[in-house]
Amino acid sequence: MTTLAERLRSRGLTLPKPTPPNGTYEPFTRSGSIIFMAGTTCVRDGELQYSGTVGADLSVEDGQNAAAICALNLLANLSLACDGEYDRVRALKMNGFVKCLPDFTEQPRVLDGASEVFLLALGDRGRHARAAVGAYALPRGATVEIEAIFEIG
Amino acid sequence: MTTLAERLRSRGLTLPKPTPPNGTYEPFTRSGSIIFMAGTTCVRDGELQYSGTVGADLSVEDGQNAAAICALNLLANLSLACDGEYDRVRALKMNGFVKCLPDFTEQPRVLDGASEVFLLALGDRGRHARAAVGAYALPRGATVEIEAIFEIG
Amino acid sequence: MTTLAERLRSRGLTLPKPTPPNGTYEPFTRSGSIIFMAGTTCVRDGELQYSGTVGADLSVEDGQNAAAICALNLLANLSLACDGEYDRVRALKMNGFVKCLPDFTEQPRVLDGASEVFLLALGDRGRHARAAVGAYALPRGATVEIEAIFEIG
Repeated sequence: MTTLAERLRSRGLTLPKPTPPNGTYEPFTRSGSIIFMAGTTCVRDGELQYSGTVGADLSVEDGQNAAAICALNLLANLSLACDGEYDRVRALKMNGFVKCLPDFTEQPRVLDGASEVFLLALGDRGRHARAAVGAYALPRGATVEIEAIFEIG
Repeated sequence: MTTLAERLRSRGLTLPKPTPPNGTYEPFTRSGSIIFMAGTTCVRDGELQYSGTVGADLSVEDGQNAAAICALNLLANLSLACDGEYDRVRALKMNGFVKCLPDFTEQPRVLDGASEVFLLALGDRGRHARAAVGAYALPRGATVEIEAIFEIG
Repeated sequence: MTTLAERLRSRGLTLPKPTPPNGTYEPFTRSGSIIFMAGTTCVRDGELQYSGTVGADLSVEDGQNAAAICALNLLANLSLACDGEYDRVRALKMNGFVKCLPDFTEQPRVLDGASEVFLLALGDRGRHARAAVGAYALPRGATVEIEAIFEIG
């Protein structure tokens, strides 16, 4: 049986360490079997990886890469909630915000970059409902920010 | 006893078929008695009905009509979760995003168009908490996007 | 044992009366032990306290004050759910929208103004996950809007 880290590695993705919260909040909270995850941005090793605007200086593919980084950060924070036992968790909801031009319409394609990380990492337990929204401005100047809700067994 | 479809029809509204997800996600997920619904836009029969900006080329009433379409799409997707047995469900939360000018202030009036569809369709079980936000850009170029959380008995 | 109102007063903050919903929705809904709170804006006694744009005519500190007012309004509405027995509730999630310029990056610092109110009011039970997003336009022209999820025992 392959681990989550191995499944990610097979696609050239690395599970990062949890990112410290960027303010007075927790990386997650839990109520019963529901885990509410704080929003994450496309930061890796403390450095913002994408800060541009999709549809202007960034392509949809750039946005997908940024979204994938957010998803990896969510999975890293999720390890704090499940002690790294990812077979205990199931994705429920993803909300993604994409910094874009006002006439940009492909926020969903951008967020597929994050959704596919959830599916790769968790298989069928990675399937989730989702809302995609265009953003005017995001923390740190990030291109993508994503928050999520998980279930833990 | 009138059905949800009949109650909608009495106001000239039609319950659509569920809209296929616009990407790698599910129309809903369920955890215990909570149903998380994916965001829907003002699409009918595969065609976007409103793509303008409220306060610019669209009126508040146009926005309300767009919001009502989103709500109908949510109710259609909800049928997948409750097998069409709408008396088993109760609305909990609605989050609505309205494409508008930066000085537009009536996002809540726009979203009343969606909230009233929930109340018409579900009666007291349609009552919900809500957040209304102005959006810079939305998927497909939609004027309104709405996501929701329901309870199922 | 000090009350929530006393703890707030020690910092010069006043717990307001619940603000009537600005439209066809409820101030909160409850499902089991989860309470979904409607979004609140920086309104006090029916008057908007901050309507500018952070990074333009408003400072980060102005934004923090606006965020604190939203948090107080959430706590006021929460009293309707817990009959004023705040020791029965625990914060789970805060989502905050900050009206700002597109290059503004400190939405998290702005929302710390609200998070600190939760911590002051509820102690460790005020700790929450959070997402901060920059907004293009908000209801009433508000500078900050915040929604939240709580647990009730």
